[in-house]
Amino acid sequence: MRASALLNMNLYGTSFIGSTRGAKTDETFNAFDPTTGNAVEPAFHSASIEELEKAANLADAARIPYGNLPGKTRANFLRSVADNIEALGDTLIERATLETSLPNARFVGERARTCGQLRMFADLLEEGSWVEARIDHAIPDRQPIPKPDVRSMYRPLGPVAVFCASNFPLAYSVAGGDTASALAAGCPVIVIAHTAHPGTAEFVASAIAKAVKDHEMPEGTFSLLFSKGYEIGQALVKHPAIRAVGFTGSRRGGRALMDLAAARPEPIPVYTEMSSVNPTFFLPSAIEKRSEALASDLHASVTGGVGQFCTKPGLVFLPQTAETSAFISNFRYQIANTKPAPLLTGGIQKAYKDASETRKSEVDGFTETTSTELKGFDVNPSVFEVSAADFLSKPDLGDEIFGPTTLIVNADSKEEMLQIAGDLEGQLAASVHGDEADLAEYADLIAILETKVGRLIFNGFSTGVEVCPSMVHGGPYPATSDSRSTAVGSRAITRFARLVCFQNFPDSALPEELKDSNPLAIWRMTDGEMGR
Amino acid sequence: MRASALLNMNLYGTSFIGSTRGAKTDETFNAFDPTTGNAVEPAFHSASIEELEKAANLADAARIPYGNLPGKTRANFLRSVADNIEALGDTLIERATLETSLPNARFVGERARTCGQLRMFADLLEEGSWVEARIDHAIPDRQPIPKPDVRSMYRPLGPVAVFCASNFPLAYSVAGGDTASALAAGCPVIVIAHTAHPGTAEFVASAIAKAVKDHEMPEGTFSLLFSKGYEIGQALVKHPAIRAVGFTGSRRGGRALMDLAAARPEPIPVYTEMSSVNPTFFLPSAIEKRSEALASDLHASVTGGVGQFCTKPGLVFLPQTAETSAFISNFRYQIANTKPAPLLTGGIQKAYKDASETRKSEVDGFTETTSTELKGFDVNPSVFEVSAADFLSKPDLGDEIFGPTTLIVNADSKEEMLQIAGDLEGQLAASVHGDEADLAEYADLIAILETKVGRLIFNGFSTGVEVCPSMVHGGPYPATSDSRSTAVGSRAITRFARLVCFQNFPDSALPEELKDSNPLAIWRMTDGEMGR
Repeated sequence: MRASALLNMNLYGTSFIGSTRGAKTDETFNAFDPTTGNAVEPAFHSASIEELEKAANLADAARIPYGNLPGKTRANFLRSVADNIEALGDTLIERATLETSLPNARFVGERARTCGQLRMFADLLEEGSWVEARIDHAIPDRQPIPKPDVRSMYRPLGPVAVFCASNFPLAYSVAGGDTASALAAGCPVIVIAHTAHPGTAEFVASAIAKAVKDHEMPEGTFSLLFSKGYEIGQALVKHPAIRAVGFTGSRRGGRALMDLAAARPEPIPVYTEMSSVNPTFFLPSAIEKRSEALASDLHASVTGGVGQFCTKPGLVFLPQTAETSAFISNFRYQIANTKPAPLLTGGIQKAYKDASETRKSEVDGFTETTSTELKGFDVNPSVFEVSAADFLSKPDLGDEIFGPTTLIVNADSKEEMLQIAGDLEGQLAASVHGDEADLAEYADLIAILETKVGRLIFNGFSTGVEVCPSMVHGGPYPATSDSRSTAVGSRAITRFARLVCFQNFPDSALPEELKDSNPLAIWRMTDGEMGR
Repeated sequence: MRASALLNMNLYGTSFIGSTRGAKTDETFNAFDPTTGNAVEPAFHSASIEELEKAANLADAARIPYGNLPGKTRANFLRSVADNIEALGDTLIERATLETSLPNARFVGERARTCGQLRMFADLLEEGSWVEARIDHAIPDRQPIPKPDVRSMYRPLGPVAVFCASNFPLAYSVAGGDTASALAAGCPVIVIAHTAHPGTAEFVASAIAKAVKDHEMPEGTFSLLFSKGYEIGQALVKHPAIRAVGFTGSRRGGRALMDLAAARPEPIPVYTEMSSVNPTFFLPSAIEKRSEALASDLHASVTGGVGQFCTKPGLVFLPQTAETSAFISNFRYQIANTKPAPLLTGGIQKAYKDASETRKSEVDGFTETTSTELKGFDVNPSVFEVSAADFLSKPDLGDEIFGPTTLIVNADSKEEMLQIAGDLEGQLAASVHGDEADLAEYADLIAILETKVGRLIFNGFSTGVEVCPSMVHGGPYPATSDSRSTAVGSRAITRFARLVCFQNFPDSALPEELKDSNPLAIWRMTDGEMGR
């Protein structure tokens, strides 16, 4: 309690409207300690519509000046954000732990990832080639008509609305992947804090606000809005100043934002990451040869972070082998002996319990933690089991249950696996376990899965998303709203950019990236050839 | 008449459903000769819902086999499509001229562009780097956790619905830019023919169908549906097999398809190119120094193709200079002496006349062709004139009138130009005429325009879109549905692709583009570095 009392001294509970703080409005909410279910001080004050309007207008005013800053200037700004987050020290880690009950060590790691992402985008801006510059020189005497000089590159989309994720209070929240990639692309950002961890949000926002001030960025470069209900978030998505949306959360919430954005007078791109059960296929050789290790690894993947990763394997397909029943028994035993743990919010806890109750009536097998005492937002880890035939006849068995549970599907044949794969909805990831001979024999399964996912994993689990240039954390709907994009890795930056073309412009009026001398020494395509 | 009689012998008037032809259904429509307004033989038969269903299922079945073909195989197929279109010879050119009244020479050029686009995408596939392959090698001993091997590249989205454009019967119709880029990306295509030029569509479809057969492509690689009304097109956009849509046409039609696609259980990307007035700003030095040449060039740009280019300059902003009134008089004189010419359809003619009548009552000045005799779908070219103050107070003056007309706006000051630019909707292109000193003085105008357009032109006109790697033929809504994309140039291919990531896959199971040895010798990013 001492730590939290200390932290509260630094939390004001009001929004960040550019360089000023929002009012202590009458509508308030608190974070909760998931281990007890009790409210945590202080109260946070919902932003008013007037404050939203002011933040949006500031962002609109910042659009051109912030978007036109040199990449190196934005890189320095992003590095300062990372430095300032680290400077928050244990204060940030302890508050995040208090609001989520996830362990300190998790947040030490998540902070490293968050600051790593900010610095990765800073590196990307300093290197500069991300804009994909292309130059086609004029051919004035071409017949029948002259060829003009044409040059193009990525430019920022404009102000972006970012919704914090419940399950990543740092890496996909205030200064997380969406914010970092949008700021990197040159877009002002307005963040809607998650009600589950508003104190964490306020600390991180103060780190960004300090960097905005220290680097003399336009005031509207960053705002953070607290909101108890949905009205402020919805109004933000509908605001004409907003040009794109980033969201991580439920399928219902994400689809609502997609529909709002599509119904605007001027529709805008929406990047929602929503719902995925990340189907995991065990091919015969895997179960035959590595049954014990795989059961333990699967258990770790299903229960890590209390099952609250978007990449949790929520569907597991098993072939008929001599080892299959031993594998299942082993996995059930491990689940039965997993301690209950609290989910992030009371709402997530209720959804988990309700969905579990429904699913129990639809499956053949069910095992959960054998403990009895549940406190706060605790739930029992569990595993369901069903035949492939039943799975095929009950489409809602493919729905995600957010939390430490998975569904084992027993397939009688390769054909059943293929049929199930063909019926799957879009997913963030799918895993296949086996050997190279399996891969050849199941090439048609791989071909089908490739059309369903953003990431296909061989002999590994879907949890743990590497932040690197080649990562694709995306996938067809309902995994995300836009299968063409990734939310993780350096490619995430182009979500918030659009191509702009300059025709016949004199060198003096072109962006540095498009000048003939290539002053930034970036990779470009010139007259069809890559070079720098 | 001899030529058209001959052509009719080869036209069946039925859809292409994979390798078979559709039925002679009861619902029929005809093309019209715009010079007379008379129907042209033969009748074309609307596809039935059953035929649509069959085409969609064939496309779905072709998705994986066609999408997994090597790029070189698809390249050869695209080259055959181009060869077959050329082999249609004058038959194609004469039918296109009959159905549109646009001159033969225009279609000789448009055919060259169409076949050039197909071969450009074939070259792109043969070169292979368009997939933007990235490889990050594993670091098994990395602390605290091993780094996995991660590789990603563009893969096809799946079957695409393409709607033919009224104003580009070849280059943005059956084998036009949308079809060529979708087929290149590895997506089967179902085309909805435009009712204005169904005979042209049937000829081009036969060229594609022959290439599908000769190259033994999966049957569902290509289908063409005729439809008198909107039902078949709408049903196609709603069909679950369809994964993306390409459309060129009116704002109302494009928005309707956007809304349909967004309301699907699984929303899909839609690329509509709709409405643009391509604002053209004359800065003082341009009018002072080149008044006469600019008036003639503007006239050519406004009236070329009977004003039916999406890039026609429909809004012209003039500064107050000593030469401005002479420029306007000269331009009005040229318009008054331009012969009437037929628009593509009776519907386009009616829309032009109705919009012109409304606009006459809202402006200060109006000049049109001084002729009297109008035949068929003829209209009079015209020019409207208004003050900047009036323009700012009447938002519908910014709406596009499709056809040979433009609106001159007299600006009293730079501030008025900036205010007008800030209020503009999204546009495909904007042009600025002046000298380098003007560009510096009007840097804030350029910065605003850059946020409004896909292409910014200096001392040139927006008509004439170069097909090259750097071209961006796109722009914010309502110019297009997706400002991140281009419909022209080699970058158009990524509209129909999405990123897919392979984690820890053995080399033997990876696509060629991602194998360690780089057998295709393509440009790739490996461990963060570009190379090949």
